[in-house]
Amino acid sequence: MRKEELFLLIKDDLSRIEEVLKRNFASYIPFINEVSQYILFAGGKRLRPLLTVLCARLCGAERDAYRLSVLFEYLHAATLLHDDVIDSAAFRRGRRAAHHIWGNQAVILVGDFLYSRAIRIAVEEGNMDVLDVVSRTTILMSEGEILQLLNCDNVEITEDEYLEVIYRKTAALISAACETGAIFANKDSWHREALRDFGTYLGYAFQITDDLLDYLGVSGETGKDVGNDFKEGKVTLPLIVALERADGDDRKRLLSLIKESEPTPEGFNEVCRLIEKYDGFNHTRRRAEEFVEKALSCLGRFPSSEPRNLLEGITRYVLTRRH
Amino acid sequence: MRKEELFLLIKDDLSRIEEVLKRNFASYIPFINEVSQYILFAGGKRLRPLLTVLCARLCGAERDAYRLSVLFEYLHAATLLHDDVIDSAAFRRGRRAAHHIWGNQAVILVGDFLYSRAIRIAVEEGNMDVLDVVSRTTILMSEGEILQLLNCDNVEITEDEYLEVIYRKTAALISAACETGAIFANKDSWHREALRDFGTYLGYAFQITDDLLDYLGVSGETGKDVGNDFKEGKVTLPLIVALERADGDDRKRLLSLIKESEPTPEGFNEVCRLIEKYDGFNHTRRRAEEFVEKALSCLGRFPSSEPRNLLEGITRYVLTRRH
Repeated sequence: MRKEELFLLIKDDLSRIEEVLKRNFASYIPFINEVSQYILFAGGKRLRPLLTVLCARLCGAERDAYRLSVLFEYLHAATLLHDDVIDSAAFRRGRRAAHHIWGNQAVILVGDFLYSRAIRIAVEEGNMDVLDVVSRTTILMSEGEILQLLNCDNVEITEDEYLEVIYRKTAALISAACETGAIFANKDSWHREALRDFGTYLGYAFQITDDLLDYLGVSGETGKDVGNDFKEGKVTLPLIVALERADGDDRKRLLSLIKESEPTPEGFNEVCRLIEKYDGFNHTRRRAEEFVEKALSCLGRFPSSEPRNLLEGITRYVLTRRH
Repeated sequence: MRKEELFLLIKDDLSRIEEVLKRNFASYIPFINEVSQYILFAGGKRLRPLLTVLCARLCGAERDAYRLSVLFEYLHAATLLHDDVIDSAAFRRGRRAAHHIWGNQAVILVGDFLYSRAIRIAVEEGNMDVLDVVSRTTILMSEGEILQLLNCDNVEITEDEYLEVIYRKTAALISAACETGAIFANKDSWHREALRDFGTYLGYAFQITDDLLDYLGVSGETGKDVGNDFKEGKVTLPLIVALERADGDDRKRLLSLIKESEPTPEGFNEVCRLIEKYDGFNHTRRRAEEFVEKALSCLGRFPSSEPRNLLEGITRYVLTRRH
């Protein structure tokens, strides 16, 4: 499926999701709406709600899951807001990060507000299984963010530890969005399990690709600063591979570049060349491909259908996206 | 009831709450435990869980509500952590504020973790009514914190607007803790309503007294910096009264003291004298007393009992406490 074709087929779902998003985040405090709007309507892909909607349809749900689905976008937005503060990122989705406009304090609190709204939507749905999945997931997510913080500048981190962090930080939420689709459709445990696994693998592929784009993306296309992870001391898969494989002078050079308190563009370029030399980018790309294959095989447990077709398209798109 | 007598009678409940608190917050990440422990076991009064336990008992619950009750302490601790960052408070409960030890980033994330744990406890209880109350409350709380931030340095704030902020920021959670006791005991709507109102009035009295102690407390006893609210531009009831009543030179002087970017101890003392001159402290104390009376009259709807007696003791203690 070509990208243009995929986007055409999900266009209607995306605009319905957009409508519900707009209707639901409203607070009686205009300031909250202003900050929420900034982060929620900054060109997000709506991947998570879209997955809930399509997974529910894949499981034969009698109605559409739009209303419930947006809780995953609110959770995601809350994380982005707290992340912005934490990372001190200057740019997010091509615009100034929220905390540079409103200050850390406001941004933390609006994050808390969006998080509360997300839980409220799950409660309004009145389904204990959804609440069970969502409440487990938010614990995993906060643990993931903390693990990432603790691993800052950790040049000893292994690929397994890295996968543990991104499972909690990213894959758990995408997995929950997919599993919730099956719960919404009242499906039994193999549907839930298959979609939970699908979401987990897709989430891994998604985050690994994200980390690759942080090295190889083009700032104008990704809307983020390239080399941001490196600057912030986040040791992601391409660098982990290079650190594991390089020895002698190359390893020494890598370590000294990582330890620089103010990394320069030249330093970053040199790191990229060293990662390339040790095949770190290709290794990372292959890992993402493997997870995409695993995700697709989970979908293979379902009979062919339009929603399965779209979910496959989205899964493959993860590998080719440039932002 | 004398303070010592009250403390003796609630001693066992407090140690059971303490046990459950310790058992529940554990994460597999030691760092989270370290930060959580620092904020959770820094001499908090456990007012909120204690209220849940006593309100459940007042409503004739068949078992004790210890396990459920601690969710309100986790929510409270999460708020304290995010508040510490937001206020840049140097001290909290007589010790250095968490963010000065671990940094803003870690503190925000551990706050998120404790918040998630609180929701998880409510989900594990499996009671939709509890989840309904808790999820409404967390929205109110984040709105309250934002309102407080937006009202920073607002010398035009009225007493009604102030009450609106403290309802959301403080009273809503205390109210939820009390109402949850009635839900836990499976009691019908008048019990819920009476305890919801009791908690709301108690919460008002509690926060108003807190704001008074911020002017009149003694640092060694409150464990907080005296004059902190004033330094941070929080315009609370004593100051609101003085601002409403003072005119001419006194008002001008108050406004200029508030606008100073680096308030001095002498400036703070002068503000105290002006508040005293316009009877701001007495007015504030009377308001707290009125709310205590309202809270007690809600308890009066229940027949006499040991738990009612203890709840009355706690309510009266709010007015005499010095920390």
